[in-house]
Amino acid sequence: MTQELTDLARLCVHTITTKPWPIEKAAQEYAAAGIGGITVWRDALAGRNIPQTGNLIRGLNLEIVSLCRGGFFPAQTQVARQAAIDDNLKAIDEAAALGAPLIVLVCGADPGQSLTESRKQIQDGIAACLPYAEAARVKLAIEPLHPMYAGDRSAINTLAQANNLAESLNSPWVGVAVDVYHLWWDPDLENQIKRCGKNKNLSAFHICDWKTPTLDMLNDRGLMGEGCINLKQIRGWVETTGFTGYNEVEIFSNIYWQQDQHQFLEKIKEAYLRDS
Amino acid sequence: MTQELTDLARLCVHTITTKPWPIEKAAQEYAAAGIGGITVWRDALAGRNIPQTGNLIRGLNLEIVSLCRGGFFPAQTQVARQAAIDDNLKAIDEAAALGAPLIVLVCGADPGQSLTESRKQIQDGIAACLPYAEAARVKLAIEPLHPMYAGDRSAINTLAQANNLAESLNSPWVGVAVDVYHLWWDPDLENQIKRCGKNKNLSAFHICDWKTPTLDMLNDRGLMGEGCINLKQIRGWVETTGFTGYNEVEIFSNIYWQQDQHQFLEKIKEAYLRDS
Repeated sequence: MTQELTDLARLCVHTITTKPWPIEKAAQEYAAAGIGGITVWRDALAGRNIPQTGNLIRGLNLEIVSLCRGGFFPAQTQVARQAAIDDNLKAIDEAAALGAPLIVLVCGADPGQSLTESRKQIQDGIAACLPYAEAARVKLAIEPLHPMYAGDRSAINTLAQANNLAESLNSPWVGVAVDVYHLWWDPDLENQIKRCGKNKNLSAFHICDWKTPTLDMLNDRGLMGEGCINLKQIRGWVETTGFTGYNEVEIFSNIYWQQDQHQFLEKIKEAYLRDS
Repeated sequence: MTQELTDLARLCVHTITTKPWPIEKAAQEYAAAGIGGITVWRDALAGRNIPQTGNLIRGLNLEIVSLCRGGFFPAQTQVARQAAIDDNLKAIDEAAALGAPLIVLVCGADPGQSLTESRKQIQDGIAACLPYAEAARVKLAIEPLHPMYAGDRSAINTLAQANNLAESLNSPWVGVAVDVYHLWWDPDLENQIKRCGKNKNLSAFHICDWKTPTLDMLNDRGLMGEGCINLKQIRGWVETTGFTGYNEVEIFSNIYWQQDQHQFLEKIKEAYLRDS
């Protein structure tokens, strides 16, 4: 049996979850709510002095869990692939400046070429960034994305693929981000989570829920408990590997973004304690 | 290299593809276009004398490839599960009356229970229908559905799962329907198609394309060549197993359903010869 969550110490919220709030407001609200961690999306840093923003967040006793997101490596031209690598190096600089120990990678896919080719380019792209990541002491976490994003967002669509890739790159600066939204359906999920933990690649755990019906392929994620994901069971599998990191709430939702964000944060806290 | 398609003899069109046409019109148009086969959706038979409709279709020299669809076995109560089985027995009666040798199963999923439970109920449901299917000489084809339908349409989401299930049921009256829309993203697809063929379970092959972006999770399938599926490669894998059945065009599309269906059928023929 998975142990119940009784406090918010291991709760982390992604800034994208409360997208209408600027990052300063989000950090203040998360801290005031007793939430332990924050994952910062790059768009939230636009126009900010990044080291100062990092200090502001830490001054509120919030832990910076990760920076979202790098990746998007595949492209049909060498020039475009190099531009993607350069952008990832920039993300590593930003993570280091912010004081984020981890960057989540949405690996990318180019619908104009085969998945096999995109997958090879992802491996090459991550490998090209690794020396820079190591020098900056920033870890890169491969996030497998739901197969409905295989066309143009990620050619890495199962935890088995992410495990293969991480094991092949074989670096302490590469890990895997497990997101229940992308992976909940996989009949091999328990085994692959075990494998991921055993190989010390389980670097992040993202939670939300899958609604039926889902009204939008990108921006209709549910609050924990609102959908059909057996979240406690999956969290149990993750914790059985020894994972003691944050449970990161990452919800893209046209519905929730239109609501009062303070009330939404209250709902997140309740759902976290009750249904996660 | 996959051999090019040079005629329409192995082209089959699903009645749902040209949904605005009543079945009589669809059959006449398919036959006049030189198309070899038709797969009949159950809704198209509403209010018809089924044996007469079968005769009408055969009289046009169209082969009836399959009846779509049975399945939807999982449910939280015994009464609802029995109702699902009863409806599948009715579908078997309809297939026999129509003269369709195969029923495609969309296996179902109940978001109120675990995928593990739904999967068990699917196996039990198919097993319960098998004696009736055998007596009617109608084969049941398990169609794995894209993981984006795991919430409420099918808990069978990979070809590996469908192969496991078919092999476990181990009957000449159970097979598998391979649909590129559901399976194209799977890194294990080539292996699983080989396995499916080797075990004599490859009973149907459905084609269309995956568009980027996809505007609707159900009804925005693309015409062959309009999306990112490497269709010729997958057809090659299917044919390497010895499969000589129909290439069945199954397109749900709010866009195409709004167009002139005669012109749409012309586009299907062109796309079939050029991009399938």
